[in-house]
Amino acid sequence: MNDLSPPTYAMIKAAAQRLNGHARRTPLLNAPLLDRIAGRRVYVKAECLQWTGSFKFRGAWSALTALPEEARRQGVIAFSSGNHAQGVAHAAALLGAPAVIIMPHDAPAVKIANTRAYGAEVITYDRLTEDREALGLALSQSRGLTLIRPYDEPLVIAGQASAGLEIAEQAEEAGITAADVITCCGGGGLTAGIALALEPHPGLRVRPAEPAGFDDTARSLAAGRVLRNATASGSICDAIVTPEPGKITFPILQRLCGPGLVVSDEEALRAMALAFTHLRLVVEPGGAVALAAALFRQDLPETVICTASGGNVDPETFRKALGLT
Amino acid sequence: MNDLSPPTYAMIKAAAQRLNGHARRTPLLNAPLLDRIAGRRVYVKAECLQWTGSFKFRGAWSALTALPEEARRQGVIAFSSGNHAQGVAHAAALLGAPAVIIMPHDAPAVKIANTRAYGAEVITYDRLTEDREALGLALSQSRGLTLIRPYDEPLVIAGQASAGLEIAEQAEEAGITAADVITCCGGGGLTAGIALALEPHPGLRVRPAEPAGFDDTARSLAAGRVLRNATASGSICDAIVTPEPGKITFPILQRLCGPGLVVSDEEALRAMALAFTHLRLVVEPGGAVALAAALFRQDLPETVICTASGGNVDPETFRKALGLT
Repeated sequence: MNDLSPPTYAMIKAAAQRLNGHARRTPLLNAPLLDRIAGRRVYVKAECLQWTGSFKFRGAWSALTALPEEARRQGVIAFSSGNHAQGVAHAAALLGAPAVIIMPHDAPAVKIANTRAYGAEVITYDRLTEDREALGLALSQSRGLTLIRPYDEPLVIAGQASAGLEIAEQAEEAGITAADVITCCGGGGLTAGIALALEPHPGLRVRPAEPAGFDDTARSLAAGRVLRNATASGSICDAIVTPEPGKITFPILQRLCGPGLVVSDEEALRAMALAFTHLRLVVEPGGAVALAAALFRQDLPETVICTASGGNVDPETFRKALGLT
Repeated sequence: MNDLSPPTYAMIKAAAQRLNGHARRTPLLNAPLLDRIAGRRVYVKAECLQWTGSFKFRGAWSALTALPEEARRQGVIAFSSGNHAQGVAHAAALLGAPAVIIMPHDAPAVKIANTRAYGAEVITYDRLTEDREALGLALSQSRGLTLIRPYDEPLVIAGQASAGLEIAEQAEEAGITAADVITCCGGGGLTAGIALALEPHPGLRVRPAEPAGFDDTARSLAAGRVLRNATASGSICDAIVTPEPGKITFPILQRLCGPGLVVSDEEALRAMALAFTHLRLVVEPGGAVALAAALFRQDLPETVICTASGGNVDPETFRKALGLT
């Protein structure tokens, strides 16, 4: 699994078919009192209600179900700060495949605990001193495991794209013909997938959202070339902290996305608090940056759809957000 | 609106038709890690994702859309600890009807604030010293407002029943043929509605859940006659604290429900914490008693469906629940 070409629309439709009945069709939610705060209509694609609490289950299931039976029996490996970890762990367990997950030692405790609870073997590493890609590759080779990359993998992007196909359907059901679709963006798997899925819908323009200091995608899109973040950790938005845009994902984003949006950690926490009060959803910081942009940025159209891409958050972080209600 | 006969199945189907496209078809959620804690399969009907954050919007919309145009223009009045208040306030606003809501002065601040935000006029009263029914009736007469009772009203029960019709469909989709359906029970409007909707499905037995000390329905069902609670306030489960079972609802419960289930305040808070971690849902204490029963009671079948009937909770109460994760 190291083809660097983007998934085709046929691959996306095929992934959606494999996911049918296995991933949840998550609801597109809105709330009149939230619209009032935003000053626009805000719709939230509630991927925090997806299996394992994030959209990552889609890509994991897509990749694992496309594996030859023999490879699946041998097992898979993934490196992840936690959401891809849980997605792969749960998909692997459902499909009877052994799973090894390499996680940063400072990942939220709930994510490490849940990844183990889904039945995976968890190995931790240090974000600042170790290279997770090298670590994953070595283990993958020594144990015959198939590496499931978190975003630079066409089958994974095709899986995440199923959220975009649903957004297109749900937007139509809601009578939305024109909107910015704001996605929480780390390596760009979800953003690229949704952008590809929405390509036949020119009224729905995708814009990636990121936390301040980790806005590699926004800066790269503006510069027209891949730029790295200055540091590798330090944001509360752990789910979407990646060193730079992906090799497969970035060209897709360049071709299809509008300019990136950047929010502060405090804005992400305030968005979590407003999702708590008005949507009754638990959203994690990295999953709330798109909603934060929808609520607190000004250069947006009348209607905005944003992903609440994950809800795996430690109670202490959630308490901090609740302090901002 | 003071007919004391129960709604017929035809009224329920008619209410569901009026609600179609206006109330949300809330998802039936589950989580493998939650099942492990419960020791059984637990499905959650996420009514906290309903408009205004609780099932009450269903009954309010049902009652308001059945009103003659002239009465609707004159306006409606409701007394409620907060969820019926918000349901009526929002439904009234959408339908262009003025709304006066009588709320206990110690209702959660978020509920009072939101009721006002939906555009209703809020009047507060003291739970211990004032009779909200008398207060409502007096205002209703002096200002020509139609009183929308929270549960002893056939059109309201018929509206809540739409959640039961959805449960029947969703249970079938999930392949569930036999289950206890546990409902959060105050005056019994949701419980009676769901019980009536599930009457054609003998495999799905409804059981009301209540907080300890306010288990009037469980005790009344056991005694075969209406028994009152000893006190009128003091539970964290504000949404489902009522003095006694309703006049219309209780005979329905007697005819159709299994024995009541009772949970402690701490169990309700622990259920909220587990819904936070495993379902990424914000559930209020009174909306969590059914899940608490599903998780912590033993005399239950292999599969249980429970309502998460509301998610309007003050941050301080939610923080308390998070302390129990």
